[in-house]
Order: sequence, then C-alpha cells, then structure tokens
Amino acid sequence: MAQDKALTPRSQDFSRWYNEVVHRAELADHSPVRGSMVIRPWGYGIWENMQRALDDMFKATGHENAYFPLLIPMSFIEREKAHVEGFKPELAVVTHAGGKELEEPLVIRPTSETVIYSMFAKWVQSYRDLPVLMNQWANVMRWEMRTRLFLRTSEFLWQEGHTAHATEAEAREETRRMLEVYRTFMEDWIAMPVVTGLKSEREKFAGAVETWTCEAMMQDGKALQAGTSHHLGQNFARQFDLTFQDEQGTEVHAWNTSWGVSTRLVGGLVMTHGDDKGIVVPPRLAPVQVVVVPIWRKDEQRTALVEKAHQLRSRLQDMGVRVKVDDRDHLSPGAKFWEWERKGVPFRMEVGPRDLESGQVVLVRRVVAEGEDRKAFLPEAEALAALPDLLSAFQSELLQEARRRREERSHRGFDGSIEEMGELLDAQGGGFVYTGWSGDPEVEARVQEKTGATLRCIPDPAFRSPEAPKRCMGGGEATCEVLWARAY
Amino acid sequence: MAQDKALTPRSQDFSRWYNEVVHRAELADHSPVRGSMVIRPWGYGIWENMQRALDDMFKATGHENAYFPLLIPMSFIEREKAHVEGFKPELAVVTHAGGKELEEPLVIRPTSETVIYSMFAKWVQSYRDLPVLMNQWANVMRWEMRTRLFLRTSEFLWQEGHTAHATEAEAREETRRMLEVYRTFMEDWIAMPVVTGLKSEREKFAGAVETWTCEAMMQDGKALQAGTSHHLGQNFARQFDLTFQDEQGTEVHAWNTSWGVSTRLVGGLVMTHGDDKGIVVPPRLAPVQVVVVPIWRKDEQRTALVEKAHQLRSRLQDMGVRVKVDDRDHLSPGAKFWEWERKGVPFRMEVGPRDLESGQVVLVRRVVAEGEDRKAFLPEAEALAALPDLLSAFQSELLQEARRRREERSHRGFDGSIEEMGELLDAQGGGFVYTGWSGDPEVEARVQEKTGATLRCIPDPAFRSPEAPKRCMGGGEATCEVLWARAY
Repeated sequence: MAQDKALTPRSQDFSRWYNEVVHRAELADHSPVRGSMVIRPWGYGIWENMQRALDDMFKATGHENAYFPLLIPMSFIEREKAHVEGFKPELAVVTHAGGKELEEPLVIRPTSETVIYSMFAKWVQSYRDLPVLMNQWANVMRWEMRTRLFLRTSEFLWQEGHTAHATEAEAREETRRMLEVYRTFMEDWIAMPVVTGLKSEREKFAGAVETWTCEAMMQDGKALQAGTSHHLGQNFARQFDLTFQDEQGTEVHAWNTSWGVSTRLVGGLVMTHGDDKGIVVPPRLAPVQVVVVPIWRKDEQRTALVEKAHQLRSRLQDMGVRVKVDDRDHLSPGAKFWEWERKGVPFRMEVGPRDLESGQVVLVRRVVAEGEDRKAFLPEAEALAALPDLLSAFQSELLQEARRRREERSHRGFDGSIEEMGELLDAQGGGFVYTGWSGDPEVEARVQEKTGATLRCIPDPAFRSPEAPKRCMGGGEATCEVLWARAY
Repeated sequence: MAQDKALTPRSQDFSRWYNEVVHRAELADHSPVRGSMVIRPWGYGIWENMQRALDDMFKATGHENAYFPLLIPMSFIEREKAHVEGFKPELAVVTHAGGKELEEPLVIRPTSETVIYSMFAKWVQSYRDLPVLMNQWANVMRWEMRTRLFLRTSEFLWQEGHTAHATEAEAREETRRMLEVYRTFMEDWIAMPVVTGLKSEREKFAGAVETWTCEAMMQDGKALQAGTSHHLGQNFARQFDLTFQDEQGTEVHAWNTSWGVSTRLVGGLVMTHGDDKGIVVPPRLAPVQVVVVPIWRKDEQRTALVEKAHQLRSRLQDMGVRVKVDDRDHLSPGAKFWEWERKGVPFRMEVGPRDLESGQVVLVRRVVAEGEDRKAFLPEAEALAALPDLLSAFQSELLQEARRRREERSHRGFDGSIEEMGELLDAQGGGFVYTGWSGDPEVEARVQEKTGATLRCIPDPAFRSPEAPKRCMGGGEATCEVLWARAY
C-alpha cells in the first residue's frame, strides 16, 4: 500500500516531505476547489484541542465569543484606505444571490474589522460600555495563487479577537496581553518556541498602527509567522463612527485591537516536530496520547488480549489520558505501528501473549531523547502509574529540542554585508539572523531583494542579543536590533 | 432607557414579542448585510453550550469532526437532480476572486453533501474503510427574502453529520440513531419536547430517500422543525462515484446519511420558554445559572457585600455551578434584576446588609411552578447546598410545562373537514392536529392551500394517537396518521 512507503527524508526535500506527511498522517487533503483544503479528522482533532486551550485562555482574560457575518459589503472594506489596499487583491466576491444580481457586491470576509466595528458602534454609547472584549471562531477567505495545506490556503479557519477601549494605553496593554497569551500557548501547548516583537511599517497589518508578532523557526530554518496582535489606534473607529461619551460627557473615538491565529498553527506543529517517520504531536494537543496495540499470533489469543487492551484503556482514561485501542483485524501489528507513528501519537503500549502471562507491557516512545531507550518493558501497574509523568516529560523535551535547534541556527551579532547575509542563509539552509537597523525602509527592501529574507520583527527585550548592535545592515548607525529570515 | 421598557406581551403580538426579546436579551442583532445576523455573546454562549452537549453525544456515538470547504463548484450542486432543484433558488454565487472572473462560478455551501461525498469517494476503497462517520460545525448560506433572527437567516451556523455505510440497513439505523440523539438533546437540554416522525415526499430534503424530523410546538401554537436526519440511499454515492469493494470483491455504491441542527434551536428555546419578562434559559444551557447581586445603600457597605458576593460565587463554582457576580456601580439593584430576568438566568441570589448580618441570602427563581414561592429567604449554607437540586428541578419543570402546553393544543382524532381544520387552527391560534391520511400528495397540497398548515410528519409510534384514524383528511381510507400544523 502506498501508505507504507517511506517518506521523502527532510534533508532531501523538506517541502516534499511536508506535503507527503500532511497527506499520509491524514491531517488534510486537497479539495475540488483550488486553494481550499479539507481538514481530516486527525488534523481537525489537533485543531480542536488547540481551540479548546486558546478559548480557555481568552475567557480567562475576560473575552466572550460572538459571531459576525461571513459576507461584508464591498463599501465597508473600502472605507479604511490602508485596509482596502492590503486586502482587495485577495477578495472573493459574491455578485449574485437568490437568483438575482446584487445591487452591491459582497465580499467573503478576509478578516472582520470593518463589520465588527460597525456593530460595536451600535452597541457602545458610554465609557461604561467599555471595554468590549470579543472573539470569534470563523472561516475566512483570502484568494491565493500558490497554496500549501495549512500554511497558505484560500479558505482557512481562525479566531479573531476584537476589542474596543476607552484609552490608548488600555488598547496597547491589550495588544501586548494577547501577544503574551499566544506566546504562552505556542510554547506550553505546541512546544514551539517563538520570538516576539514588533513588525516594521512595511510588514504590519493593513490598517494597524502597530503589529506585534510571534515568529517560530521551522526545521528547514525558515520563519513562520505564527500569530499577530494589532494595535489599531482609532483608524477603524473613525471610519465606522465608533464613539462614546467619556466621563466628562465628551464624544470621543474608541481605541481598537485585533489579534488572530489560524489553522496555520497545525502546519507549524508539523514542521517543528515532525521527523522522517511522520509527524509528532505534543501530548497536550494529541487527540490520542497513548495507542494500545494488542498483538496476537493465533486467533484463540485474540479475545484475552483485546480484553486486556480495553482494560488498560479504561484505567488510563480514568487517569485523564486520551487512549485508543487499535484492535483492527485486517492489519498486522507492524502496519499499525507505522500508522500511529506517522500520525505522531506520543506513546504506544503493546501487549502480547507473553506479556499477558507475565503481567507486563511494552511502552514505546514516539521520539527518544539523548541516552534514553525507545522501548521499555514494564510491569503493567508501573507503566500505568508512570504515564502522566512520561507524557509531561515528552511535552517539555519537545520544547527543549525545538529551542535547541532554533538557537543552533540563530546568528546573533551578524555584522557582515547584505550579500554575506545571503550567503550565510544559503549555506545554513535558512536560519535567524540578528543585525542592527536604522529603521530605513529602503534598507529593508534591499535586504529582501538581495537575500530573500524579510524583516521578521524588532524583537522584544527578552529575545534581543546581549550586546546591542551599533551598525545598521545597510550602513550608518543602528537604532534597533532586528531579526531577518526567509519565511513561509 | 429603552432597555427598561416592558416587552410587548406575547398574547398581544407573539411575533413582535419575539423580535423584541431577541434584541433586548442581547441574543442577536441585525447586521449591515440584509439577511445575515450577528450572534451576540449571550446568544452565542447558549449556542456554545448546545454545541458542547451535542458534540459529546456525536462523539459518544462514534463520530469524528472534520472540515470541508465553504465554496462548492456549481457543477457539483447540479449533479443530483432533486438536490439542485431544491437549492438553486437560494444560492449565493462567487463569480470573481483574486481580481479575476472565475472560469466556473462557485457557490457558498447551502449544505455539503456534494463536496463531502466527493471526498469520501477518494478515501473509501474497501468495505474495511466503512462506516465513515463524520460531522462538521460550519456556517452555511441559503439566500432568504423574509428573514427572522435565528429562525430564518441567509447565513446560519449548524452542524452537518455525513456518513457512509456498506449496507442500506446500517444507513437506516444511523438515520434513526441520530434522530434519537436529537430528540434526547432537545428534551434533556433545551427542555423542548418534540414529536419525531417521517416527512412526506413533498416535505423531504432535496436529494433524500427519506427525511426524519423533530417537530416542536412554540408558544403561539406553531410548529418548528427543529432538526432532521436524512436517509440518502445511494443518490449521492451514484453521482459522486462513492463506491467500495465489498467482501466478495464486487465494486458497489455506498449508502449515505446526513443530519443537522442549527442556530435555529436558539430561536426554539426562546419561543418555548420565554415569558413577558424576557427569555428563560434552561439551566443546562445557561451561560450563567446563578447571578449574585450584592445590594448596598451606602458606599461604606459596598466592600463587605461585594466581597461576600464573590465568596458565594467561588463556593458555587466549586460545586460546578456557572455563576456571575453583578457588582456594577452605575446600575440600581432593580435595573440589574430586570436585565438578568430578561436574559433568562434561572436563579438570582441577593445579599444585602441585613442578610450579611443574619447570614442569609435571598434566592429568586426566574419562573415559578404552581404553588411555589418565587423568593426564598434561606441561611447561606442551606441555599448553597440546595442549588444543584434546585437547578435540576428547574430544568425538569420547564420540560413538563412545555409538554403540558403542547398537549393542551394537540387535537387528536380530528375527523372534521379541511375547512373545519382551518377554523380550529384560527380559533386556537395554531396547534397540532392529528388526522388520517391516504398518502395522496394532492390532499396534502389542498390542506396547505386552504388552512396554511403543512404536513409536519407521519409520527413515530410513540407519538401516535391511541386509536389509529380510519378516514383520510381528504376523503377515502387512511393508511397512516399524520400531524398537521402551521409552521415557522
């Protein structure tokens, strides 16, 4: 079966490896509509776990969910000048509905600032109605020519947070709070370390005053923009008359923020942890954390082993572990092992006739840290008792390993020419390069043109190099440190 | 404030009452796009609780979630003849995207049978790949001219289950299983009793072999189709080449089912339990089950009372109760009471300076059963201990009351003429009428034309009258009993 062929190794062709692994782990598939993907149950299960974790974090920071329309009048999108310039080329447009041509074309939301702030304007009268802290889980559409499953598709699933505040300071605080929620989620749940920082003017969201970002490094050394949080100032409030009476009775404009992450995160998870056998899902996000495989040679052994497997499942479930028993008859144990390794289940528990007699199980880790054994033969009770800790150790080791890989390919204090940066990126197969920058957009454009790298962000203090760079990449004095990388 | 005006009484104008209560309980609002609604946090919170409960039930019956594209090629919709006839007039069509006219127009999914079964056809090869049991939570679009919030909007949120089976018997069993899941959910969670049964040929889903339905009665005596489950036979499998090799190695078509419920259920909840003060949310679905209102006269009392309120909240939360403290300064206690009654929170707990001294609280029920007191003055510990039982009693009383109202307006064994049925429905302001039917579609059309009532279903045995009717509504012999009602 094609499913059992080895994957193209990452070192040979990372991009091909990615496409193969996404298909063969049954994460997603191409749909009949070019640019739209189908998210299959295994991929959707990971996304559901991401949603649940994020949703809890949004609620814990005071946000409520709501739902706004899919279709937005074209005139709304056109109201904020920078916004329309950014999004117009990517719009999908509904011109006919209910058998008639529409008077005004409607666009499928590429993002919902316009329609959401027009509603906030209806609901907000006084400073007492602020802040408004909302989030929506939704599909959005940005027409793409070159698509890749999860990373860049015309339709994708995401959440978009939208808030309105009485003061600029509160809006700025919210922008940073949600960036921090994202960073925490990406590290604690996806085990994907990120550099946070400010986008340059050239890279910021169309319509924002400031865009803050989380940048992760994939195993091929390229950067993935994993989530952004925007301080929108009063740009949209002005266009949509989102005003309120302040405590002095003066009518003033509100301050907005918006922030989003998408199913792109599933692609980030794949490219952060996958290996040549398949994907690796961090335990906290895995739809199945432990797969129990009963192994029988003769038919008469089957009943007792399958029963034992379900007994183990039920014990583990009681401990809060997500477990599945694979008792399919038409697959060999080997075929089952490959399938669950390809799908990235953290632990496999095997139980065969001899194990049954001796009251032990075989526990197999999907990935092994330095100096550890992949297989452990353990008394049943010991294996069960150990699993919660083993899962949590697995989770932290994934993060450590990803961090180690990133640091290995991070070049701090780079002081060469633009050409030399290009050569470094070629030689290393990508990577993060930290340099000084004067803030001149012309330098930014030149670096991008000559090296293919873009300015990912002006890193937050925690991610800056120990010594502040003095020289700008393009010559002259540096006013800040910036992070460059080729990116998805 | 407009918010404090009394609602139009239901008895005076039910339809106006509905619109007012949906707005003033902040469930939903009209959007700038005609026919699309905005679901506000209170309405969305109820929907989220519905989703969670249904999703658990779907998973417990072996289904997995997935996600399929929003856009469907027009040619797909056109493949199943009955399907296209049913849906074509309601389609919204994307003709332009990415700045260009598309070669083939794409429609926004009105439902996803076509695209989903085209994918199943890719994934299913052998009988071993069956059954496929999937569900998706999604938005869909059916262009509507006359819209009502939740009940009929162009865009709505729903879930659609789609399954493929090796045999007709299994597909039929699945169709019935999911209908039963819906009935259980509607009764146990929404406290909305339903009659289940089979739709007539005229009323069935476009493309189905059989459509099964859950029919609820609203307080104005009109029926609401609350959920449907379709046996699709091989209609779609044939059009989308969904075939598999059976155990004998023969290539055969699979059998499909699909089933869905939508945000319309929120409208059903409102019209089942609401009263002239506002909506009433069944405790199992209420985003807030108990609102704690501290009541102070003088500023110096505030701190101690707010602290006590949060103490009560935390005790209740530990017991698994969803609680909110309303400690807003700018609203009077009375204004808070009205707001939470309008929003249908099952219980209010008041605590004032004198209660604080005597260690008691005031517990107020949103609705009161016959012979019960609305207010109870209870020692704090007693009130806390009693709440879980009180909530569960509240839940069952809502269902009983709704069932009582429905039976009051159900006319069994009706044996009059079509004209007399019309008069009965006029006099009673709607209601359910059970009669005999020959199965003749011409009779069905005549009843609808003359009375405005439609054939809601051929009820399942549990909902049939004790005595089977002998005479058909339109004359001649009856072959079955049917339920007629005017409907949303």
